[in-house]
Amino acid sequence: MTRTNGQWRLKTRPVGMVKESDFELVEEPLAEIADGEVLVRNLFLAFEPAMRGWLDDVPSYIPPVQIGEVMRASSVGQIVESKNDDFAVGQIVSGMLGWQQYFVTDGTPGPFGGLSHVPDGIPPQRMLSVLGGTGLTAYFGINEIHPIQEGDNVLVSGAAGATGSVASQIARIKGAGKVVGIAGGPEKCEWLVKTARLDAAIDYKNENVRSRIREEFPEGVDLYFDNVGGSILDDALLGMAERGRITVCGGISGYNDSTPAPGPSNFMQIVIKRLSVKGFILFDHLAQAGQAIADLSGWSASGELAVEEDIQEGFENTPKTFLRLFEGKNLGKQLIKIAEPE
Amino acid sequence: MTRTNGQWRLKTRPVGMVKESDFELVEEPLAEIADGEVLVRNLFLAFEPAMRGWLDDVPSYIPPVQIGEVMRASSVGQIVESKNDDFAVGQIVSGMLGWQQYFVTDGTPGPFGGLSHVPDGIPPQRMLSVLGGTGLTAYFGINEIHPIQEGDNVLVSGAAGATGSVASQIARIKGAGKVVGIAGGPEKCEWLVKTARLDAAIDYKNENVRSRIREEFPEGVDLYFDNVGGSILDDALLGMAERGRITVCGGISGYNDSTPAPGPSNFMQIVIKRLSVKGFILFDHLAQAGQAIADLSGWSASGELAVEEDIQEGFENTPKTFLRLFEGKNLGKQLIKIAEPE
Repeated sequence: MTRTNGQWRLKTRPVGMVKESDFELVEEPLAEIADGEVLVRNLFLAFEPAMRGWLDDVPSYIPPVQIGEVMRASSVGQIVESKNDDFAVGQIVSGMLGWQQYFVTDGTPGPFGGLSHVPDGIPPQRMLSVLGGTGLTAYFGINEIHPIQEGDNVLVSGAAGATGSVASQIARIKGAGKVVGIAGGPEKCEWLVKTARLDAAIDYKNENVRSRIREEFPEGVDLYFDNVGGSILDDALLGMAERGRITVCGGISGYNDSTPAPGPSNFMQIVIKRLSVKGFILFDHLAQAGQAIADLSGWSASGELAVEEDIQEGFENTPKTFLRLFEGKNLGKQLIKIAEPE
Repeated sequence: MTRTNGQWRLKTRPVGMVKESDFELVEEPLAEIADGEVLVRNLFLAFEPAMRGWLDDVPSYIPPVQIGEVMRASSVGQIVESKNDDFAVGQIVSGMLGWQQYFVTDGTPGPFGGLSHVPDGIPPQRMLSVLGGTGLTAYFGINEIHPIQEGDNVLVSGAAGATGSVASQIARIKGAGKVVGIAGGPEKCEWLVKTARLDAAIDYKNENVRSRIREEFPEGVDLYFDNVGGSILDDALLGMAERGRITVCGGISGYNDSTPAPGPSNFMQIVIKRLSVKGFILFDHLAQAGQAIADLSGWSASGELAVEEDIQEGFENTPKTFLRLFEGKNLGKQLIKIAEPE
């Protein structure tokens, strides 16, 4: 059977806000696979804010996506043809397979890893949400960078996003005294309190973040887990307790700026409050991924950790779905389903 | 004998750059001292950039100086009258005695400490420079916050100032691989290389700081000790090595801004490079001041640590001398001599 592969390729480097037209859809027939190769059909694609950074031609922790290349992304797929003894038709795998419908590999890991088997009994898309990059980022950010100390007052921004929603709940599970999430809009805030069972939520679209932080934490924030940067980081800096810790996970507010936005005006709070501010990248912690996945699976199975996935549909909607991240539309992990298992 | 006390009091809160006219000189006769009291005559006053922050009516690590109050400052003085058995006439003492010619106390520590005896054999002004607040700040900043690791590539801003000049040399003494200082103008840069024996100096007034950092540290900066903030911090962020450490000691570039200046645009380098950024305040480390003073005295006596003091003269020039800090005029510790020992 001859199959056609659709690929979303980077057409132009975005300047400022990324647009659908920065990508182009190209369809090409797939050749027969060779001995040793497998053909994977993507089922779900995952979206992360950090992918915006991969589109800029600047030095970073990984090379940028080149013009004409398939957009880099995590996905889960199904083996639909195999001439490789390590993979059987029907198996579910995950990897960095990109914005395309099919992926051919001999199983040798590329620069962004190889194919991993998804264990039976786990819904495939879980490998992209709580058990994927964003869930693991939350896990290591909370456990390794500035570990939770019993009774910590914890503030999390982007708290209804894929990473923040997991980070804030791990803080609760690990014994934080109070956990407050910042998110945009009443629906997300309600989810944070009712479903994720945080102590409170701050709606940055409708509330004064600075005064709400003071109100929730009159004695200051011990740990701020930041996914957004920008003015919310500035407000959090003012609300920190002495010797507080800030774990900088991301800064989505600035990812689409065509020139670097100014940093926090309240930077000197780092001195005045004797703060510790640390950044981290998931890649550095992958050696401990096994323990992380075991813990995250256990917590989600027991219901201690609520998992939320925002699943759009249709391969043609891939770039549009990516934009949802920057429009603040997603609650939980942003995914797109592009095929049913065969 | 009736003495007249001159006091420089805060007249108006500076908006933007501090001006001489923000202070006023008031002269009043001194009353006789009471039983238990001593009269101290100030010999040297010390100036630090952080004093600018004490003039703003905002919450900080210590309360602001109030309008009408004598400007708060460290000084060394001599006991010229004593009705207190703990202090004999002629002894040299140090303390937070303020911008005034005389100070009366019963020896009870106030909110900013009491009187300390200056040991014989130490030039009095040393207690305000290398053995004073700025020297101790450098000591704890280098030794406690992000300790030097053998072979570290170290960059220090404000390197010809009172704190930076000591911090950069302690880094050298403690086994850094390479130490480069940033300072303004050829005279300061020459001092850094010839007298402080750093490996190189970057003249921010005449060189491109960003490219010079790359040139001096092709493999990146392991430890950046920052006294200035602003654009130099931004340049340093871009020049950091992965897992580099930034010790934020101060940010003089922004101290006279009437509204907080934007923070570093390259803030996200904290994530990309997995940096650790920590602030600190000397007050937290005073319990270990004894060891610090012993080490600093030893290094300066042996010549390992070059000590530079910029000593102006004349009590009437006190506010003008304070401004020298923000004009970048001082090489080493900014002091003023206002009297000879009696």
